[in-house]
Amino acid sequence: MAFPQLFRLAGAHVGVKKAALDLAVILSDRPAAAAACFTRNVFKAAPVVVSDAVLRESAGYANAVVVNSGCANAVTGAKGLADAWAMSKAVGPGTLVMSTGVIGVNLPIEKIITGITHIQPGTTASHWEDAAKAFMTTDTFPKLRSRSFTINGVEYAIAGMDKGAGMIHPNMGPPHDTLLGCILTDAPVEPIALQNALTYAVDRSFNSISVDGEMSTNDSIFLLANGAAGGSTITQDTPEWIQFRDILTDFSAELAQLVVRDGEGATKFVTVNVRNAATYRDAHTIASRISTSALVKTALFGEDANWGRILAATGSVPDTVIDPSRVSVTFVPSDGSAAFPVLVNGEPLVVDEERAKQVLSLRDIEIVVDLAVGDQTATYWTCDLSHVSLFFLSSPHATHVCRNMSLSMATIEARYTCTI
Amino acid sequence: MAFPQLFRLAGAHVGVKKAALDLAVILSDRPAAAAACFTRNVFKAAPVVVSDAVLRESAGYANAVVVNSGCANAVTGAKGLADAWAMSKAVGPGTLVMSTGVIGVNLPIEKIITGITHIQPGTTASHWEDAAKAFMTTDTFPKLRSRSFTINGVEYAIAGMDKGAGMIHPNMGPPHDTLLGCILTDAPVEPIALQNALTYAVDRSFNSISVDGEMSTNDSIFLLANGAAGGSTITQDTPEWIQFRDILTDFSAELAQLVVRDGEGATKFVTVNVRNAATYRDAHTIASRISTSALVKTALFGEDANWGRILAATGSVPDTVIDPSRVSVTFVPSDGSAAFPVLVNGEPLVVDEERAKQVLSLRDIEIVVDLAVGDQTATYWTCDLSHVSLFFLSSPHATHVCRNMSLSMATIEARYTCTI
Repeated sequence: MAFPQLFRLAGAHVGVKKAALDLAVILSDRPAAAAACFTRNVFKAAPVVVSDAVLRESAGYANAVVVNSGCANAVTGAKGLADAWAMSKAVGPGTLVMSTGVIGVNLPIEKIITGITHIQPGTTASHWEDAAKAFMTTDTFPKLRSRSFTINGVEYAIAGMDKGAGMIHPNMGPPHDTLLGCILTDAPVEPIALQNALTYAVDRSFNSISVDGEMSTNDSIFLLANGAAGGSTITQDTPEWIQFRDILTDFSAELAQLVVRDGEGATKFVTVNVRNAATYRDAHTIASRISTSALVKTALFGEDANWGRILAATGSVPDTVIDPSRVSVTFVPSDGSAAFPVLVNGEPLVVDEERAKQVLSLRDIEIVVDLAVGDQTATYWTCDLSHVSLFFLSSPHATHVCRNMSLSMATIEARYTCTI
Repeated sequence: MAFPQLFRLAGAHVGVKKAALDLAVILSDRPAAAAACFTRNVFKAAPVVVSDAVLRESAGYANAVVVNSGCANAVTGAKGLADAWAMSKAVGPGTLVMSTGVIGVNLPIEKIITGITHIQPGTTASHWEDAAKAFMTTDTFPKLRSRSFTINGVEYAIAGMDKGAGMIHPNMGPPHDTLLGCILTDAPVEPIALQNALTYAVDRSFNSISVDGEMSTNDSIFLLANGAAGGSTITQDTPEWIQFRDILTDFSAELAQLVVRDGEGATKFVTVNVRNAATYRDAHTIASRISTSALVKTALFGEDANWGRILAATGSVPDTVIDPSRVSVTFVPSDGSAAFPVLVNGEPLVVDEERAKQVLSLRDIEIVVDLAVGDQTATYWTCDLSHVSLFFLSSPHATHVCRNMSLSMATIEARYTCTI
């Protein structure tokens, strides 16, 4: 894996959680342009408030990020705010903060501060992996990815880590868990250009996934660009900016999809593609509605080609341009076999039940809804709602037990029998 | 039971469904002022389009209602529209139509027309009950209620029937399944006053319930007022109109709650009360968001006093006035014991786990969210999301089998074991 230069990282266990890594520190050895997208939930957790303030104070620069898992430091009042500031200041000036875990409980702040004092960041792959592991709550695997790219002949690296796996349906906007993500690059980007690229990318990646339809109080994505690899600074609306924005969008989508793949109890990975809408907003809102529909998600779990539920969800979104006589719905199998249309221009086709079963039994499924009223497209990634999801969602203790014991989905499903 | 005068009803089996009653005809022996609220889904079923046209043509009068269950006549194109018109005309001029059942399948229209020709409406309690039974799809009991009321010394009766039990999260507006409801009264009300009373009542009853968060293509509520009991005609904005509107609202809420009580797989009946909001719209939208949150509904099933999920749902509604430091959350037990506050003015209380378990183990639970920023209140009724709900939602065939076999919840739950 190629990692961006002049970043040092570490993950440690400091005692927020019983045994697993629970603290990450990420340092940039030179001041980095920094951008963030935060949850739009009214109940913003203390670390969100503090990171927003840090970024405003520095006018878009940061030196470090500190992250803890196991406690969200959300709905914790004045004490919570002081704790988040203490975390930031213990690392140094210009430090952004993220927390994820239980709501309504104060941080064990002394343990965290002591941990920060002793942590030893470095640049090896295992430093990066430990940092990614310290993000995890009910995740079953750490989520770390990196890529190289070239702009104007200069080679850059971009790397990122994020975490799920419950309360996932982010809606993040520029300066505002529990989706946490941190993306680092050694490309040189001017702060406002960086923020605009991130806002664009987040809308098409982290804001386009859903596991359980819930927007958390802590959702945060940070992007640091320290320019350590050289080259000219990328500014807004240049061809280089568009190139960077598109690379960032694609990379963010990869990180976001990891969260859906690891969704609590998910047995299907579902891509919802809404095409030829009048506006991007229409396409995105309809894709979101389909992706969060309990009836669509349970039909997918039941491997039932129930296009009526897809259509009902599509038609329930207010203020969108839809002409019922133009709408088509198609299932696209992930095994490369022919697409499977079920509704064409508003007219239902006679469904070959055998073929439907075949397509729906695949783990990866794509649903295409073509509105045929414009040229805008949006893609959402979601999962099904299975017995295992429900088990996790209704038994918070069990979630941690099962996931921390690394029980495989197959084991949980086997234990979780339906005999009716 | 007291039924309104000069209405005749019948329910029959005509062969849309295999065995159960599937056709209802309701006649008013004198022209009735008529009002309707229809689904706001873009994909309106043929009977919705036809009933809307009938009402417009008559400028708010109707003579009859015809209803079939077993087939929704939705997404059925020109043939579906012709079939819905044929149903209406077979009963006679001024006949409103409702259908509920499978989407994307044409009606067996000949069987229905033959059924209409032979049906024998009458006025006895069993005529009313048979009509209510013919509304049912996956419902486990017919939903029929009646009341008497007095305005200016004249005694009137109001009776109504409705059905659930899946795809329930209606959003209905004035002239536009699958929630179907039909309310009949012998009070004399002018058509526009009747429509306005119904719109007001539906917003506070049928539009304030959720089972699975889905808005159907067929949701329809009809209200016929034939004035058979005499008295002066009630017109808009008079004290008599407000009296009638409030009686209607209360009666509609009773009918709406029956649908939630019979929600597919529900084990809890949950009242969500949002108080002291800046606007009614804020209160209603937040109550709706809490009532449809998968995380809240699964926590309720798990009997977990997870106020963090309630708060996250509350804060995720855009464009509402919320001051995090003023919000309080309380569980109100249905056994008459003391209210159980968990968050007061944005500060979490230390939760007595024993007491939480006690309160959450009740079948009926009320959640009160006090925003303390105004004086507007809205109430929503919802249910939990249980293993049985999920079983029904993911196995459409099983739903019909289990429900038509009248398996009790206890039987289904016993067969449906969780051994993890």
